[in-house]
Order: sequence, then structure tokens, then C-alpha cells
Amino acid sequence: MVSHPYIPQDLILDGFVQISTAQITVLGVYLSSSFLVASFIWLVSGWCAKLSQTERLIMCWLAFSGLNHIILETYFVFSPEFYKDSSFLADVWKIYSLGDSRYAARESSLVTLEILTVFFVGPSCLLAVYAIAKRKSYSDILQISISLGHLYAVALFYVTSFLQGNNFASSPFYYYSYIVLGNSFWICIPILIIIRSWKEICAAVLAASHSRAPTQKKNKTG
Amino acid sequence: MVSHPYIPQDLILDGFVQISTAQITVLGVYLSSSFLVASFIWLVSGWCAKLSQTERLIMCWLAFSGLNHIILETYFVFSPEFYKDSSFLADVWKIYSLGDSRYAARESSLVTLEILTVFFVGPSCLLAVYAIAKRKSYSDILQISISLGHLYAVALFYVTSFLQGNNFASSPFYYYSYIVLGNSFWICIPILIIIRSWKEICAAVLAASHSRAPTQKKNKTG
Repeated sequence: MVSHPYIPQDLILDGFVQISTAQITVLGVYLSSSFLVASFIWLVSGWCAKLSQTERLIMCWLAFSGLNHIILETYFVFSPEFYKDSSFLADVWKIYSLGDSRYAARESSLVTLEILTVFFVGPSCLLAVYAIAKRKSYSDILQISISLGHLYAVALFYVTSFLQGNNFASSPFYYYSYIVLGNSFWICIPILIIIRSWKEICAAVLAASHSRAPTQKKNKTG
Repeated sequence: MVSHPYIPQDLILDGFVQISTAQITVLGVYLSSSFLVASFIWLVSGWCAKLSQTERLIMCWLAFSGLNHIILETYFVFSPEFYKDSSFLADVWKIYSLGDSRYAARESSLVTLEILTVFFVGPSCLLAVYAIAKRKSYSDILQISISLGHLYAVALFYVTSFLQGNNFASSPFYYYSYIVLGNSFWICIPILIIIRSWKEICAAVLAASHSRAPTQKKNKTG
């Protein structure tokens, strides 16, 4: 049995390979590549004169979130024994597991959450970037669907953790920085997107029903 | 240790009280009360001349599904030791657990799924019945949100079951009748509702943008 840095200490991770990349390097690569993605989308979306700044910000978020799901989380789903690897992506997950060892332990509800995110939410995020750019009629409803998926996943994460004893962090620092702070973006931003898109859809439905109403009246009287 | 009828046989359910209500009685009460709820909603919604038959059918489904969540599933959430009880509701869950013993074992992802369903999806179902009746502008978006919640929950149920070994049924009969057939309604109907409401919203957004477009043109030229 190889020792590992996770809680609970009796978690069995045979063949565990120690983390070889410095945490500051992993964080640096993650934050700088996220910044690059967001900047690229911000610049490209700026060429579309019709898009508001809020819409462009949402596109940045969706592109970042979608690539997160498609690159990082896809690696997790298809690498059940990442703790035995020494690649950069394996180190990302070994470090993230310091905040919640259930990732290393492959706890079934977390794996399920990641499978649903990878196969449904991730591609939908990229589709939504396209939908906003092209002003598709399904843009807002897709944004709400994605954001509900995010909220459901985060709720699932926290409630299962609570029910399972809520003791999976190697230290409070990792728990609050990686898990609480990390997940908070996938709580706050989806809520804001849902509120905005919900209002947009309600306004469109009201406008459509008002524009239909006079025509119907005219048809009835005519 | 008291014997129980569940798989895996080594599942520990100390103080298990045998099922005292006949399965045919439980099924009879469940189906007849569901039929009564649906009939009541069908009749009452018939007084609203403006509602289509499809809308009235969706109202029946949402009322049935909402009461299912609020009565049956709320009992489950707040009765962690239902297998020790001999009430009718306890027997409902003891019988349903024959199809998947994780309910009796209080598997954390199932409990989480039920908590989210009880607190968010259940009340939303009843709100949606009201929203359809009153032709609220948020009616379709609420129906999509609820139906996505249903689909997420069913996907979570099946994927966690698969990851955990998929061997929790006392017999294939219970698995296919209670679990597969039972859940199939919460797959097929939500998909149909999503398709319908998605089309409705897209049509409204298109109509609203068309009705806005001439006004904008007029304002520009005027």
C-alpha cells in the first residue's frame, strides 16, 4: 500500500504516484489558459456589433465552462486510475482531490455528475456560444438548461458530501479554496444567467401574445 | 439481525419490519388516487375554454407528478428508518425497495436526488399547473426546468446504479415493473414536454423579434 495525502487516510489508492507538478504551476496554467480562452471569445464576439456586453461576457463564461467540461472533466471520466499517472492532467485531478478525496476514490455520484456534465452540459455550452453569436431563437432556453445542469451538479456535489460525512478534504485551505471558492462560480453565474434569460423569455412570450392578440381580434371582427 | 427480502442479502437493516400491506393493495391505492387526481385536474381545467387538450394533459401529469414528489418522496426524505415502520407509506417504500434496495439502504445519491426533487421539483410542478391555467409567460420555461430536473434525476438513478454494480433488485420482475416501467414515465413524458415547450418558446422569441424589427426600422427612418 502506497501512502497518499488524502482524507480519509484509510482510503485505498494502490499504485498512487505522488504529485509531481507544483500547485502554483497547475493553477498558473489553468488560470492563464482560462484567461486566454475568455479574451479570445471577448475579442471575436466584439466583431458582432449587435451583441451587448452582457451577452459577450456570457459567451466567455460558456466557452470557458464548456472547455473545462470537455478537456478537464472528460479526462477524469475516462481515467478511472488517474492517481497512478504522472501527466499534467492527472496532477490537476490529484491536486483537486486534496479538496475532496471522493474524486480520487471515484465516488459514484461524483462520477455520474461528471459523466452527465461531459456528455450533455459541455457540448451544450459550446452550442450556446454559437447560439448567442447567431442570435438563435433557442439561445436563452439553452442557457437556462445549461445553468440548471450546473446548479443540479453543484447541489448534488454538496448534498452527497454532507450525507457521506463531509470529511474528504486534506485541509480546510484546500476545501475552501478549491471546493468552496471553485464551485461558487458555478452557483453564482448560473443563477445570474437563469434570471436574465428567464426575463428575456417571459418578455418575448408576452410580446408575442400581445402581437397575436390584435390580429385575432381583427380576424374575429373582420 | 432481522432477515429482509432485499439484494444484496448482506445489507444490514436492523429492526426491519416485514411488509404488511399486500402489493396489490398498495398498487391499487396508488393507481386509483393518481387516477382521481388526474381526473379532477382534467375536469377543472376543462372549465378554462382557452386551454388545449395537450395543455390539460400536461396539467394532469404535473399535478400527479408534483403530488407524488410532495407526498411519497417527502415521506422518504424525512423517514430514514422507514423499514422499521409498519405504516402504509413505509410499506410503499419497502415494496419499491424490492426493485432497488438502495432506497432501503439510504444510498446517498438516491437520497440527494429525492431531496432535490422534494424541495425544488415538487413545488415547481404545482406552480406549473397554476402557470398553465393562468397562461403565465413563464409557463413553458418552468415546464422545461421541471422536465430537465426529472431527466437529470432518472439519469443519476441509472448511472449510479450501473457504477455501483447494478444488482439491487430482489427479482427481475420487481426491477422491470417498478424501476424500469415506473421510471420510463419520467423519461418519455418530460422529453415530450421539453420538445413542445422548446418549440413554443422559440416561436414566441421569433415572433417577438419580428414584431420588434419593423418598429425599429420605422424608428430609424422616422
